[in-house]
Order: sequence, then C-alpha cells, then structure tokens
Amino acid sequence: MASDFAAGEFKLITRLTQGLTESSDVALGIGDDCAVLDLGGDALLLATCDSQVEGVHFTMHTTSPEQIGRKALAVNLSDIAAMGGEPRYALVSLILPPQLPLAVIDGIYTGLRQEAERYATAIVGGNIAGTGKAEQLIIDITLLGTVARGHVLARSGARAGDVLCVTGAPGSSAAGLHTLLHPDQHYPADALELVRQRHCMPQARVHEGQVLSCFGPSVVTAALDISDGLSGDLEHLCERSNVGARIDLSRLPLSSEICNIAKSIAYDPVCWAMHGGEDYELLFTVTSGQEHAVIEAIQTATGTPVTVIGTILHREEGMKQVYPDGRVEKLSVMSWDHLKQK
Amino acid sequence: MASDFAAGEFKLITRLTQGLTESSDVALGIGDDCAVLDLGGDALLLATCDSQVEGVHFTMHTTSPEQIGRKALAVNLSDIAAMGGEPRYALVSLILPPQLPLAVIDGIYTGLRQEAERYATAIVGGNIAGTGKAEQLIIDITLLGTVARGHVLARSGARAGDVLCVTGAPGSSAAGLHTLLHPDQHYPADALELVRQRHCMPQARVHEGQVLSCFGPSVVTAALDISDGLSGDLEHLCERSNVGARIDLSRLPLSSEICNIAKSIAYDPVCWAMHGGEDYELLFTVTSGQEHAVIEAIQTATGTPVTVIGTILHREEGMKQVYPDGRVEKLSVMSWDHLKQK
Repeated sequence: MASDFAAGEFKLITRLTQGLTESSDVALGIGDDCAVLDLGGDALLLATCDSQVEGVHFTMHTTSPEQIGRKALAVNLSDIAAMGGEPRYALVSLILPPQLPLAVIDGIYTGLRQEAERYATAIVGGNIAGTGKAEQLIIDITLLGTVARGHVLARSGARAGDVLCVTGAPGSSAAGLHTLLHPDQHYPADALELVRQRHCMPQARVHEGQVLSCFGPSVVTAALDISDGLSGDLEHLCERSNVGARIDLSRLPLSSEICNIAKSIAYDPVCWAMHGGEDYELLFTVTSGQEHAVIEAIQTATGTPVTVIGTILHREEGMKQVYPDGRVEKLSVMSWDHLKQK
Repeated sequence: MASDFAAGEFKLITRLTQGLTESSDVALGIGDDCAVLDLGGDALLLATCDSQVEGVHFTMHTTSPEQIGRKALAVNLSDIAAMGGEPRYALVSLILPPQLPLAVIDGIYTGLRQEAERYATAIVGGNIAGTGKAEQLIIDITLLGTVARGHVLARSGARAGDVLCVTGAPGSSAAGLHTLLHPDQHYPADALELVRQRHCMPQARVHEGQVLSCFGPSVVTAALDISDGLSGDLEHLCERSNVGARIDLSRLPLSSEICNIAKSIAYDPVCWAMHGGEDYELLFTVTSGQEHAVIEAIQTATGTPVTVIGTILHREEGMKQVYPDGRVEKLSVMSWDHLKQK
C-alpha cells in the first residue's frame, strides 16, 4: 500500500467500491464529481463530499481561518459546478484539536458563511468532534445541489471530434502554492498577491457550470472541474468517456501573473497550467461547431473567458500534447503532489 | 474554550450557527437529528452526518475494522431512524494515516457494506484523504434518507401529559465500554460478550422509527435517538419541546447482562441505563392513551420491546427522577464522557 493516499486515491476508491449494489434511483454513482440521485421530482439531487486536512491541504501559517472556511466549501461548490448544478445545502463536519483557539473556529465559520451566502447555500447540519490528542484540524463538507433532469454535465459523454475547452487560466493555484512553499525567493509583488489569493481562496465556477448545463449534453458533452491538475483531470475525462485527447500547448491560456512568477524563478509556466492542481476551473467538451455559441454564452453571462485548448480523439489515439513547433508527444500526466516537490 | 469538545459541542454549535439564514425549503435545520429538506416531491429529504475518530470513538485494540465500519454507518442510520425515515444514500469520507494496512481499510469497507446492504442503503460517493503525518483514522459519513411528508418525527412536539417511552434496554453500550476500559476486572462471560457487542456493533432502530412515523405527530409527538445518554438526550428533547419530564427509575428496563456486569463490580446499573451513551435506542413521547397501540405496533412489526418510563411535564416543573421508594429529585444530567472516568 502506497504511503501517499493522494497518489493512490483513485485505485483505492476503485478497490473499495467495486461491485457495490446498483440502485435504480442512483442515476450516477461513484466516479463523477457528484453522485446523481433521482428522488422522482423535477430536479435530480447532486451529492458530493470533500475534506480539507491541516498539513495536507492547508497550513495555519499560510492560510487565514476565513480562507480555510471559504476554501473548504469552494472545493465542494466546484463539484456541483462541474455537474451544472445549483448548490443548495451544506453539512459541515469539524474535527477539532483540543487546544484550538475559539477565534480560529469562529474565523473558519465566518469564511464558510460568506461562501455559502454567496451561492445561496444553506448550512443545514453538521457535526463537531474532538481529535482527542492529535493536533490536526479537519473540515469535511457534504454539499447537496440540484440540477434539472436531462441537464446533468457528466464526465462520460465526450466523443472523438469534440472540442476541448477550459474556463479561466489554470496554473495560478500551483504558482501560489510554490510561493508559499518557497517564501525566501523573490517574486513580483502584484503577481504574488494574485496567485496566493487563487491558491488560498479559489472560486468555484458555479454560474459557468449552470450556463453549460443549459445547453444540454448534446452540445456540452462532458465536463469536470480541475482539482488534480489539467493533465490528470483530462485523463479522468478520457477514461470515463473512453476517448483520447490532444492538447495544443500553444493555445493554453497563461495568465500574466503566472508568467511573471515563473519568469522570476526561471520556471516554465506551462508546467503549472498543465499539471497544477486546485484551480477549480471547468474543463469541458463541446460538439464541434457549437463552441462559439457556448463560449459566447459563458462570457456574456459571467464575464469568464473560455479557451479552446484541444480536441477529443479516439481512444486508441491516446492522449497527446502538441508543442508550438508542431512536435507531437504523448501527454505526460503529472500529479499535483509530484509537482509540489519541485 | 474548553479543551473537551464533546462536552462543549452543543454550545459551540449554537455559537457557530446562530443567525444562519433560514430558507423556505429547509423544513428543519440545525438542532434535530437530521436536517429536513423540502425539494418539492412526495417525500422530504433527511440529511445527517457523523464522524468516528480513532482514539475518541474507537480504538484499533478493542474494535475490529469490520465493527468500525458498521458502527460508523450505524450511528448515522440511527439519526435517520430518530426522524422516522428510510435510509437511502451514504457518502463515505475516509481520512487515513499514512501507514494504515490495506487489510484494515478493506475490513472497514466490508463492515460498511454489510450495514448498508442490511438497510438497502446505497454508497454513492465519498472521498479519501491522507492525514499527512498524523496517526489517526477518521471516518465521516453523510447519510441521506427520505420520509413521507407529514410523518417526520422531530424533537420538538412533546406536550405536558405525553407518555415517555424507550425502545430496548439502554445502558449496555456503556457497560460494554466499561469492560473494554477495565479489562483486568472479572466479568461474567455471557454478559461480557453481549455488552461488548452492543458497544462495538450497535444496531440502529430503523424499522422501529418507521413504525413510529406511521402514527404521525398527533400520536407520536417527539422522538430522538440515545447517543449521548438517556438523561442528556431527554434534556435535548425537553429543550426543543419546551417541556419538563419525569422518569420513574423503577420502570427503567435493565437488561440482565448489565445487571450481571454491574453486580460483578458492585456498580449501580441504573447509572449506565440513565447516563450511558451510544445505545442508539429511540426515546419518544406518545399522546396519553395511545401508548398501548404504539407499543403493540412496534413489538408486532419488529419484536423490539418498548417500555413506558415516565411522563412529560410542563416546562416549569423541570426534569425529575422518581426513586422506587417514591422520593422525587431533580434529574441530574450526566454526560457520557463524565461517566467514562468512573
């Protein structure tokens, strides 16, 4: 058993959940961003949970309590966004070390409430437990949402020929994490603030997901959020859709801030954009010819830029990356944890 | 801030959740066993979450992986039971220490699956995270259920004159815990096995709750499950219903096993029955005169005995306990954690 559960998580989930009894009211079970549950009403129910562990996902030294609270909810909001849903209800489970100052707990809840109010999400329940002796704060949130029947965005619908798109400019969160892990290096101040904010207080693309959902699965064929990194999450999409993909590296949207940070440390910003985790942008596929309408709708409704970065291929063509000089290589999937070591 | 979050949990929850925005689709928010959500269909949605923390709720020395998995789900099933609901969907969040053997994780999931199958509950999602360096396993489960509109059992409907009832015989779990914490004392073997099983593998009263729910709130006026202890949970019921209560100690159902264990260590079994936590029996109130029909229905449908143990009083009369000799005293609420020290 690998000691690193982040790397082994997907294999472990497969192992533990294989052969689970299927149920007719579970429209979509384990393997997508949310479970999709059919309770018979007009809307389908979405359910997801995600935890933030001190020392693994955040540290008290680099993140404020408010930011911890906001991010703990944001990562779950992003899963609802990836399915095109409307976030509705949150259950908040706190595991608290014995000597944690009350001000920290208050701060976390302030952040949680701000993020919940922003998306009209009600905190309806939860649990508080002590860690006993361990000095490790954990926040585990379950988020429920709804989505109109027939408008679920899933990972599994991409077909060869579809156009691959991404919202915003991935890589900022990884750049921000780098600056937090290497605080002694010198970075341009403006860019530094931006990338750290992106890392510590990511924004889920909830409204963007809802716009995608309006088009329905015949136009927006698959979607997921970028939590593990663009390359890794594209691999998940390809596996679930049984397709291959090609990314044109020259088309990757690179923000000026990650370019500036990268330049200051002589690093390649494409690495952050391709493999950096925790961006919470949406990666999605669109039936060829429809991409302009979809991009236009998102930009008009939300102001968020969308970029075409590649094409879906047949499964046997695999995953490829095309360099600016036209060279084509097998796309190397790197995990976010691997990147952290750099 | 108290270092013991178990004791301070309820105050902390009140502090953190005060003034949370109410929403018309949240029929019942924080403060009952489950949140009750109205998505507009025939059934209402129930949502609850509860965590099991190694070293706080269980230890690897005294509990098998299968038992840990079963109990982690059972404590959530009990919350659905307390609302009269049908458990439907579980999301399982695991926080795993780095060197945890795969066999332990497999065992936990085996227990989870057994318990889920028993109640036709689908495991539809979850999350796996590493603890980083901390050596503490945590299982946090969110359970969703449904209940027919108009048939929710809540904590808040008890009225003076109602009859107070309890399923089964509380106290076994606390007796079992005592034997685990004091393994060097001598206990009668038969009783020992029974009380330890009750502690390590409690059974949620799911079907009993559903029978109660059938009667509707005009007959079964309030209910909750005994997780903190009979006295403490009765206090919760009284607070939410704005009533007082009287327990006749002579009517408390004491199982022969807790009497035998108590006798062997010269302890009063009433203490376990009144204040011991984690029994997951149901404590409920019935409109006076209807109790025989309700008790008969539960016994016929499930075989589970039900005992009338007291009466609901007006708020100003407070909480009282009546001794077998007729002496009346203020009911002392002791927490489960307090009892553990004995």
